[in-house]
Amino acid sequence: MTATLSATSHPASTTDLPPVERRASLPAGFRAGGLAAGIKASGRPDLAVIATTEGPAAVAAVFTPNAFVAAPVRRSRANLATTSGDPRGGFGWARAVVSTSGCANAATGAAGDEDQERVEGLVAGALGVEGTHVLHLSTGIIGTRLPLNRVAAGLDALVPGLTSDDSGFDAAAGALRTTDSVAKVVSTTVELPGPDGANSTVTITVSGIAKGVGMIHPNMATMLSVILTDAAVEPAVLWGLLRPAAARTWNQLSVDGDTSTNDTVFVLASGATPSAPVTAGSPAAIALGGAIEAVARDLARQQAADGEGATILLTAAVRGARDDADARAVARAVVSSSLVKAAAHGKDPNWGRIAGAAGNATVASRAVLEAAGLSQEAAAARAGQPATLDPDHLRISIAGHLVFDGTQGGPVDFDRAMARAAMDAPELVIELNLGLGDGTGEAFGCDLTEAYVIENSEYTT
Amino acid sequence: MTATLSATSHPASTTDLPPVERRASLPAGFRAGGLAAGIKASGRPDLAVIATTEGPAAVAAVFTPNAFVAAPVRRSRANLATTSGDPRGGFGWARAVVSTSGCANAATGAAGDEDQERVEGLVAGALGVEGTHVLHLSTGIIGTRLPLNRVAAGLDALVPGLTSDDSGFDAAAGALRTTDSVAKVVSTTVELPGPDGANSTVTITVSGIAKGVGMIHPNMATMLSVILTDAAVEPAVLWGLLRPAAARTWNQLSVDGDTSTNDTVFVLASGATPSAPVTAGSPAAIALGGAIEAVARDLARQQAADGEGATILLTAAVRGARDDADARAVARAVVSSSLVKAAAHGKDPNWGRIAGAAGNATVASRAVLEAAGLSQEAAAARAGQPATLDPDHLRISIAGHLVFDGTQGGPVDFDRAMARAAMDAPELVIELNLGLGDGTGEAFGCDLTEAYVIENSEYTT
Repeated sequence: MTATLSATSHPASTTDLPPVERRASLPAGFRAGGLAAGIKASGRPDLAVIATTEGPAAVAAVFTPNAFVAAPVRRSRANLATTSGDPRGGFGWARAVVSTSGCANAATGAAGDEDQERVEGLVAGALGVEGTHVLHLSTGIIGTRLPLNRVAAGLDALVPGLTSDDSGFDAAAGALRTTDSVAKVVSTTVELPGPDGANSTVTITVSGIAKGVGMIHPNMATMLSVILTDAAVEPAVLWGLLRPAAARTWNQLSVDGDTSTNDTVFVLASGATPSAPVTAGSPAAIALGGAIEAVARDLARQQAADGEGATILLTAAVRGARDDADARAVARAVVSSSLVKAAAHGKDPNWGRIAGAAGNATVASRAVLEAAGLSQEAAAARAGQPATLDPDHLRISIAGHLVFDGTQGGPVDFDRAMARAAMDAPELVIELNLGLGDGTGEAFGCDLTEAYVIENSEYTT
Repeated sequence: MTATLSATSHPASTTDLPPVERRASLPAGFRAGGLAAGIKASGRPDLAVIATTEGPAAVAAVFTPNAFVAAPVRRSRANLATTSGDPRGGFGWARAVVSTSGCANAATGAAGDEDQERVEGLVAGALGVEGTHVLHLSTGIIGTRLPLNRVAAGLDALVPGLTSDDSGFDAAAGALRTTDSVAKVVSTTVELPGPDGANSTVTITVSGIAKGVGMIHPNMATMLSVILTDAAVEPAVLWGLLRPAAARTWNQLSVDGDTSTNDTVFVLASGATPSAPVTAGSPAAIALGGAIEAVARDLARQQAADGEGATILLTAAVRGARDDADARAVARAVVSSSLVKAAAHGKDPNWGRIAGAAGNATVASRAVLEAAGLSQEAAAARAGQPATLDPDHLRISIAGHLVFDGTQGGPVDFDRAMARAAMDAPELVIELNLGLGDGTGEAFGCDLTEAYVIENSEYTT
């Protein structure tokens, strides 16, 4: 039975993604930097700027679905809508991204919007660009105002030193951090057809940085990511690549179930390395989309592994679902279950909790389903509905050990000591084969630990 | 500002419910009992039987939506479908409920169904009733078989001693327990129009027992409840009263976000105290429905307060929502948030987490919305969609202290020491006024503690 449940954490659909390296390789056409501007009381780096070296980059964005959305998200959306003319604010053009860490500028009302406008003016002035070409990221304490004087002084010090060396991108990654234990960086390359015909190719770099997930520290917010590429692609096409990649990766990431007021992902394409036209559905677009998804997936895994109090990365890999939407729902339900997360922490091969969590799986929202590629009609029919499972077809494997086989009556007489030993590793993979179809999906989370509760119940406001 | 945010935990819609008492007052027409049959290794009570004193009682039921449903649930559904002729299995007739505690008979395949059939035969034989008139409850370890010999011996000892004294109902409540720290019992009475016309009334008793919530112990399951009344009402009408009551109470209860394989609520109406006909929409039906909801609500509150590792009852009371479905979604999101639960444990008046959790609120599933009274069309349109919030209209109060007022720019300069002191109580009420309409709703949960994690991460399989 185990033969059909491979030990890999990659569902079939992700094995086509290009390999990644965990380094901050800055693509051509960008410069970057970060430093400590004094926004954080700790004195750690807290201000980052990424800018293009020449004209505007094509941008695609995904923002938090939280109704309680922060000022930097509102400002970024508005600027993208202005530069693209598309009122959804999901894509457009930009020449800079500014990130402040330590203050989320969330729940600050109209004053917060004015502060963010001031930041925009400072960045635009320092770089000599239009304000609408500035995008905003912010993370940290909710309900407090940005220290504008410190941001201004920080920008004065930072902008002249922006560099196209990888060190600048590393510095930006460091300045994104709040309570992240490590900076999160990743890079990949992909071959696209060259600009002069089918016989030539060009090598494109796609690199990403991110900060941790969850509303980590009391009153703190946010998961943020910036992905950069030297590819040449129109904003709307880039958005069409980012949305399904995000639906399959970040939407499948759960540390504590809350999405924050500030969550934002930007992809910027400088166009420094032209290729054959990257039109929707073209081989070039498929290759570039795979590279973006590979970067997004690895960042999501790094974020899950660095969840607060976490000691392991918890991966659920689902196959055999009726379709991918069901598979992703089941995977997300498993990594989101407090009981599964606690069992993972205790190295307990507790298939009953996994089955129980899977049985609660609910398909994602309309917006996520549409982003993943479903039609409006299909998304409306599926959103919020239970995933289809049949216990008599379900098989569950924990860390490579088959523990439940519904096709053989249910519980399997497995070697618990060996299973427990296999669970004692930095990544725990739980596999579920629903036995109902070809749908695959995966999700990423972490264990639930005493440290999480202690960290989050301490009085700090 | 505080004047418009009352300190009560009752949204407007629940103030009409009759008061309840926490005692096991057995309604006329029933007998009950419980004892230790040796299903639990601990030797605690684990077998309960509730039977009618005369013919069959009208029954309405609500079962777990978990796809991984246990044998007792399947058997109960089938028997109700048989006795009512309605294939949904939500209502019908029964003369007995049998409950086994310590073994969930879940994930046991066809053998588990055969075991439950054997239990049914034993109960039917001991009581001299039809097997299809027996309903089943079971809770405990998943994946193990029922010890039929012990159940048989236990029934032999238990059935002759079933009593119509309240002591029998108390004993049944005790035998429902697994790791519950206390037995959960509640009772209310309500006046219905008498059988002989508008000028007479009869007093009807509605009483309930329940066991705790969450998949409490590793591999353990289930929230169970049995509500009994001496009212005379048709099964389909009773179902029409139970479903919206459950949607407003148990569906708004969250301990750790998982619904189990065995969750079941039964309402049995003996008909021992006839009234004017309880037809759908009649004053008698509205009064009886209110009594059922009052009992369900109090049992849900007792279950939340007794969540594993819990030290307080966490209540979210929402008003001013666009409609009740939105209000319930927001309330449920607040009490389900790990971050809010941890802050509650730390006595931290952390409005940022409450706002963040509210901003993530997602309206319930179609099935729950339809149960709550929405039309099929309305339920399909709303299910799984985000609730509507506007930060500029939102007000949040913690333990009676207004902490956020979006109509006044956001954060309120409240007295943190006083708020913390007010949070140091057995029940913490978080109130949200969305300022958008007349919708009200509430939800019940508990704090997240180190004890929860320790209890659930210990290796026990």
